[in-house]
Amino acid sequence: MSLDPVLARIDADLDAALERLMALLRIPSISTDPAHKGDVARAADWLAEDLESMGFAAGVRPTTGHPMVTGTAGSGGPHLLFYGHYDVQPVDPLSLWDRPPFEPALEETPDGTVIRGRGAADDKGQLMTFVEACRAWIAVHGALPCQITMFFEGEEESGSPSLVPWLEAHAAELSADLALICDTGLFDPETPAITTMLRGLLGEELTITGPRIDLHSGMYGGPAINPIRVLARIIASLHDDQGRVTVPGFYDGVPELPEAILAQWDALGFDADGFLGAVGLSHPAGEAGRTPLEMIWSRPTCEVNGILGGYAGDGFKTVLPAKATAKISFRLVGTQDPHAIRQSFRQMVEAMLPPDCTAHWADHGASPASVMSTDAPAFEAARQALSAEWPNPAAFVGAGGSIPVAGHMKSILGLDSMLIGFGRDDDAIHSPNEKYHLSSFHRGIRSWARILDALSRA
Amino acid sequence: MSLDPVLARIDADLDAALERLMALLRIPSISTDPAHKGDVARAADWLAEDLESMGFAAGVRPTTGHPMVTGTAGSGGPHLLFYGHYDVQPVDPLSLWDRPPFEPALEETPDGTVIRGRGAADDKGQLMTFVEACRAWIAVHGALPCQITMFFEGEEESGSPSLVPWLEAHAAELSADLALICDTGLFDPETPAITTMLRGLLGEELTITGPRIDLHSGMYGGPAINPIRVLARIIASLHDDQGRVTVPGFYDGVPELPEAILAQWDALGFDADGFLGAVGLSHPAGEAGRTPLEMIWSRPTCEVNGILGGYAGDGFKTVLPAKATAKISFRLVGTQDPHAIRQSFRQMVEAMLPPDCTAHWADHGASPASVMSTDAPAFEAARQALSAEWPNPAAFVGAGGSIPVAGHMKSILGLDSMLIGFGRDDDAIHSPNEKYHLSSFHRGIRSWARILDALSRA
Repeated sequence: MSLDPVLARIDADLDAALERLMALLRIPSISTDPAHKGDVARAADWLAEDLESMGFAAGVRPTTGHPMVTGTAGSGGPHLLFYGHYDVQPVDPLSLWDRPPFEPALEETPDGTVIRGRGAADDKGQLMTFVEACRAWIAVHGALPCQITMFFEGEEESGSPSLVPWLEAHAAELSADLALICDTGLFDPETPAITTMLRGLLGEELTITGPRIDLHSGMYGGPAINPIRVLARIIASLHDDQGRVTVPGFYDGVPELPEAILAQWDALGFDADGFLGAVGLSHPAGEAGRTPLEMIWSRPTCEVNGILGGYAGDGFKTVLPAKATAKISFRLVGTQDPHAIRQSFRQMVEAMLPPDCTAHWADHGASPASVMSTDAPAFEAARQALSAEWPNPAAFVGAGGSIPVAGHMKSILGLDSMLIGFGRDDDAIHSPNEKYHLSSFHRGIRSWARILDALSRA
Repeated sequence: MSLDPVLARIDADLDAALERLMALLRIPSISTDPAHKGDVARAADWLAEDLESMGFAAGVRPTTGHPMVTGTAGSGGPHLLFYGHYDVQPVDPLSLWDRPPFEPALEETPDGTVIRGRGAADDKGQLMTFVEACRAWIAVHGALPCQITMFFEGEEESGSPSLVPWLEAHAAELSADLALICDTGLFDPETPAITTMLRGLLGEELTITGPRIDLHSGMYGGPAINPIRVLARIIASLHDDQGRVTVPGFYDGVPELPEAILAQWDALGFDADGFLGAVGLSHPAGEAGRTPLEMIWSRPTCEVNGILGGYAGDGFKTVLPAKATAKISFRLVGTQDPHAIRQSFRQMVEAMLPPDCTAHWADHGASPASVMSTDAPAFEAARQALSAEWPNPAAFVGAGGSIPVAGHMKSILGLDSMLIGFGRDDDAIHSPNEKYHLSSFHRGIRSWARILDALSRA
C-alpha cells in the first residue's frame, strides 16, 4: 500500500474534512457543566457514527460519568491505540469572544487561515487529524496499514474521573503495541515535535494551625505564635540559594540528560528571552546552571500555587490568625517517586513546626514523570515521517506539564505513548477565541498518514 | 465639698441610674450601618438633653459624619476633658444572642448581676459611669469639684472619620489640663487599672508582582519567578532566631522598663499560662527573655495579619501567580517613629527583591505609642482614689492594642490621657451577648466620684 495516493486523497478531501470538523465543533460538549451533559453525549454519538461510517466496529461506551468512544479496524502491522478527547473547556468569559464559541468558522489572520471556535485546537481538531488520516487510507486502499483501536474520552477537561477505572476494567480490550496521543503541540510553526518526556506532578495542601481562634494582634501580638509566619519560614526553606529543592532525597531518580538529547535541544534554538519576555520577565529564575528549556522539560521543581491566611480583603484587620494554608506542587522527572517525596516533604515540614503548631495535609494527587524509550524503532520512524512533512526536522522534546493519560497508558496498559500534536503556543486553548491553524489541521492529517505508513514498515 | 454624701447619693440613686442607662442602650446607634443614622442622631440628642438636665451647657455638634456631643460645667480646680463614645458595634450574628440586643435587661449569672445588651460595656455603660458621678456631685453640692468638658463621639466603631478634623477645628474649645477616657478595663475583677502605655500601630500592605499574568506551573515552573516564594522569604526574614524584628533601626526609641513598673507588674500575678491556654496555646512565642505581659504591654512586634496569592479556593490549580500580597503590622512602643520604621521596612524589602519583581505598597495608617507621664501628681492621686474603692490597689498597666483617641489628645490638644475603665475581659464587646457587670457600673460611678474629688485636691 503506497503513501502518495493517500496524501493526494487528503488534499482533495480537505474541504469535506473541514465540514466534518465544523459539525463536531458545533456541539457544545462542555464536560464540567452538568447542563451540557446531553451535548457531551451527542458528540460521542457523532464520533461513533463517523467511525462506523468508515468501517470501524465502533460504539459509545457508558461510564459513571461521560461516555468513552471506542472503535477498532485494520489487521496486520503494529497494533496502535489512539487517544484523543472530544470534550471541551467552558467558554467564560463569553464577552471576550469575537464570535460565538460554538459557531466555528475559518478566519484569515496575519499568520494564515485559522479555524476559530471552542475545541478547535483542544482537542477536537487534533483528534480529527488522526481520524481523517485513517479515512484517507481506507478510501484509497480499502484498508488501514496497521491495526488501530480508537479511544476517545469525554472527561479530559473535568479531571477524568472515569478514566482509570475504565482503563482497568477494559485493559484486555485495549491491549496494543504502542499508544498514540494527539493533545500536544508543534515546537514552533515549522518544527514538529514528538514529546518523549512529561513531568509528573505531586500536589499537597498544607494548613498550619496555631491558636484555637483568630486573635487580636494588639492583645496577643508577641506571645502568640502566628501560623502565617510559620508557613512563610517553611516555604522559604524549600529552596537553597542555588534554587535547588531542599526536601531530603528529592533528587533521587533525577537523571542528567544524554549528550545527544542536549545537543538536539540546543539545536532547536529555543528563544528563552522571548519565552520569558512574553510574560513580562527578563531573568530566568530557578536552578543555577540550567537553561530555561532544560528547567522546563527535564528538571524537577517545587512551586507554591496558592497561599491564604488571616484577613486578605480590602482594608486592614489586625487579626493574628488561627491558621494559614498553602497549596504546594512538585513537578517530577525521571524516576522520582512521588510517594517517597510526599513522605519526605511532610517529615521535613513536621520537623520544622514550633510548639503549639500542627500541620494538616490534603493530598492533591501524585503521578510520576513519563519518559518514553526513544530507542524503540517506532520513535525514529515517526520522527522521520514527521520530518518529511514539515519544513524543519522533527525533534524529540520534553514538556513541562503533565498529561496523565500517558502515565495511565504505561501503568495500566503497559504501553509507551507517542505524543504528537500540531497545536501552536498561541492557540488560546482554555481561553476566549481558541483557534487551530488550517495548516495544523491539513499537515496534521498528512503527518498521521505518513506515520501510519512508517510504523507499518518499522 | 465632701465626698461621702456624694457616694451615698450614688448608692441611693443606682436604680434610677440604671434606668437611664437602659434608655440609652435601647437606642440602636450602630454607626457603621447607614440604616441606623437616625438612631445614632437620637442617641446624641438623648445625651445632650441629659447633660442639659444636669446643668451642663450642652449641644449636638454636626460633623460630616455622625455628630459629636459636647457639654461644659463647673469652674475652679483642674479642667478635665472627658471622652466616651455613644455608638455601638453591629449585632451580627443575631442568632447567637440569647436576647434582643437592644432590649437590655439585668441578668443573674454565676459571676454576679450583669447588664446584658449591645453597648452595655462598649461604651455606653462606661460613658454613663462618668455622667452619673457628675450628676451625684451636682445633686449633693449643687456644683462639680472641677471644671469639666464632656466630649462624646458617635463614630468610634466605624473608624472615627470625623474625629481628627473636628478636634483640629475645635482645639481651643477643648483645651483642658488632662483628658479622661473611659473605654478600657479592670486588670481583673478585683483590681482596677490606669492604662498608661498604649502601643502604636503601623499598617502596611505589600504586594509583590512578578510575571505579567498568572502562568501555568507546568509550562513556566522553573525559569519563572514565583511572587509567593519571594514574599515568603521576605516574611521569614523579618524576625531573627531570638524573635527580634530585623528591620534596621526598629528598636530605636524602645525603652527598658523602669524597675518600679516591672516590680508592680510582677506583683499583679498575671496568669500567662491561663492567658495563652484560653486560646489553645501552651508556649509563649515572641522575643526570647521577655515575659508575656512585658511583650504585650511594652515590647514592639511585627505581625503578618493576612496573606493571599495564587489559587486559594477548593481543590488545586497549578498556577504560578503574577502576584502575592501580605498585610503586615507593627505594634510600637516608647518613642519609636512609625514614619522612620515604615521607610526602613520598605527599603529593607526593596533591597531583597530579585530581578523582575516589584513591590507595591498601601499605607494602612501610622500612629506612635502613647506613654503617659505617671510622674504627674494627678496619676498617683487617681490611683489612690481607685484603690480606695476596689478590693485590690489600682495598677498602672500597659495595653497591647491602640486607642487612637489617646494619641490625638496628645498630638492635637497637647493633653495626656488618663485611661480608666471598668470592663472585664469576658464582656464580649463586639460579640453576641455583650454584658457589663452591675458592679462595674456601680463601682465605676463611685470611682469617678472619688477621682474627681482627688483631682480637685491634687
